[in-house]
Amino acid sequence: MITKAAVIGGGVIGGGWVARLLENGVNVRVYDPANDAEKKIHAVLANAEIAASKLSSAPKLSPGKLRFCASVEDAVIDADLIVEAVPEQLEIKQSVYRLIEARAPVAALIASSTSGILPTDLQQGLSHPERFLVAHPFNPVYLLPLVELVGGKQTSTETIEKAKEIYRNLGMHPLHVRKEIEAFIADRLLEAVWREALWLVKDDIATTEEIDDAIRYGFGLRWAQMGLFETYRIAGGEAGMKHFIAQFGPCLKWPWTKLTDVPDLTEELTETIAAQSDEQSGRYSIRELERIRDDNLVGILQVLKNNNWGAGQTLAAYEQHLKAEQRDG
Amino acid sequence: MITKAAVIGGGVIGGGWVARLLENGVNVRVYDPANDAEKKIHAVLANAEIAASKLSSAPKLSPGKLRFCASVEDAVIDADLIVEAVPEQLEIKQSVYRLIEARAPVAALIASSTSGILPTDLQQGLSHPERFLVAHPFNPVYLLPLVELVGGKQTSTETIEKAKEIYRNLGMHPLHVRKEIEAFIADRLLEAVWREALWLVKDDIATTEEIDDAIRYGFGLRWAQMGLFETYRIAGGEAGMKHFIAQFGPCLKWPWTKLTDVPDLTEELTETIAAQSDEQSGRYSIRELERIRDDNLVGILQVLKNNNWGAGQTLAAYEQHLKAEQRDG
Repeated sequence: MITKAAVIGGGVIGGGWVARLLENGVNVRVYDPANDAEKKIHAVLANAEIAASKLSSAPKLSPGKLRFCASVEDAVIDADLIVEAVPEQLEIKQSVYRLIEARAPVAALIASSTSGILPTDLQQGLSHPERFLVAHPFNPVYLLPLVELVGGKQTSTETIEKAKEIYRNLGMHPLHVRKEIEAFIADRLLEAVWREALWLVKDDIATTEEIDDAIRYGFGLRWAQMGLFETYRIAGGEAGMKHFIAQFGPCLKWPWTKLTDVPDLTEELTETIAAQSDEQSGRYSIRELERIRDDNLVGILQVLKNNNWGAGQTLAAYEQHLKAEQRDG
Repeated sequence: MITKAAVIGGGVIGGGWVARLLENGVNVRVYDPANDAEKKIHAVLANAEIAASKLSSAPKLSPGKLRFCASVEDAVIDADLIVEAVPEQLEIKQSVYRLIEARAPVAALIASSTSGILPTDLQQGLSHPERFLVAHPFNPVYLLPLVELVGGKQTSTETIEKAKEIYRNLGMHPLHVRKEIEAFIADRLLEAVWREALWLVKDDIATTEEIDDAIRYGFGLRWAQMGLFETYRIAGGEAGMKHFIAQFGPCLKWPWTKLTDVPDLTEELTETIAAQSDEQSGRYSIRELERIRDDNLVGILQVLKNNNWGAGQTLAAYEQHLKAEQRDG
């Protein structure tokens, strides 16, 4: 079990990592050059604390200590795990890695939160590239269990195995993405939906709210528990997946999505989306939306735990782990 | 409120409609030429009854009567609502409509369950096309609230308004798809994901189970309650949607999905998917998977009802409606 971590970058994702680490008794040193970084991270921590108190009745670990540092080098100095959550630009990330390697212990893992840049590209030029990997989480990091682990060409098997254990002990579901590919698995699927949704708005087929409703009153309720294939397996009935594919496969040739093109994000389309989003959600502040989301997630995770299914199994395993930690510790 | 309905086609979708209608005190006459249609529908009804008993503590209406008929004409003879749920082929559907119109009351609505065929095409040749619409539901129909309502060129405004009320009274969330488009809204999004998922399997990036896990441990938990845009509004933070689009929009130009092409559903790919699906889910029968799914859906819907959010609001409104029906009835 790790006891000390560094988080470089204190945005929504970095802040979420800080929350998850602190909750698990890990001391965290943070570096973020922004003036309001401390304020932003404390806002995430406030949300995370409320969610954690509702999520589980398992005995809590005594929380880790948080320290804000004046430099990357200062933040990483004695870390077991270094989380990079800086903007999605290869050059920025690589320059941060240089600062990290200048002072971090050689045994520390370096884990990028990138949504899609290849680890092989990121780890170019590192002195110890074998301990580098991508560990891609999902917002809110302190509640959603998924973390995609992706190694680059120079990442060692040991690093992946070590990371799996670390993230499992943080209450997460590590999914090892076995082959390097841009955007990994989840974001490729999200990207496909996002592009089609942009077309629907651009062509005025549907507003942002209508699209969201088409998701959350329908298949979104299925996807909280089963994914695409298991859901379709059921739809195929006793005849099975082959029957399903035989029946629905040909639809793929129909003009059901805008296949070939990406809509231009013109000023006009951006304005349209922003206005529709205000119309849809503007009566809540972002803080309120975050709390609503978290309350719903807490409840859904508890349902799945009671039913011993999916993300609920991750939560149950985590509570077992916490109990064992307390017993042994 | 309608009291008599006909359901033509007793597959998974037709059976789900039967269940939802019976639960709401509507008498249902069914026609399906298959030998095992009765057996299949009773299996759906058994699942639906279990789910309904767990879902809501609101007083139940006395269930409608179910009758299997020997012909389309016999099934529709005195129906207020005629649900068509036959295979997705224009010619088959149109031939069924001819049989329906030969005997159905002129005031009856005719609602197709098609996932994607345009209502303007379907209603060609009807004597009373103005009372025809698409009412596209989602599996399991007796639990998921979404129903997409789509009118064709000849559908009257009155038909859409009447349908909205009917489906709302059946505990559903009618989403009026204002512009006719193939696959409407939800299935366009699903189709985009399905295509990308097929590529991931074909290229051996991920198995069916890994893809499902990437959904249900991550964004699937978000989509049960908020859709794409509201989720991203939160991710954008106080800076709002414009900031989010500015930040993430350019990623659309990255090679994050297989844009241009549909994978061929070769025998080999079909075998791969079927084998991976067996590996993933084969330890459960379809019946067991259905019950697991339904238990999870019931729990999730109750959480959302308690939090007064999304699909939970539909359930709450429905319970109010049931109480009023009992009081007045």
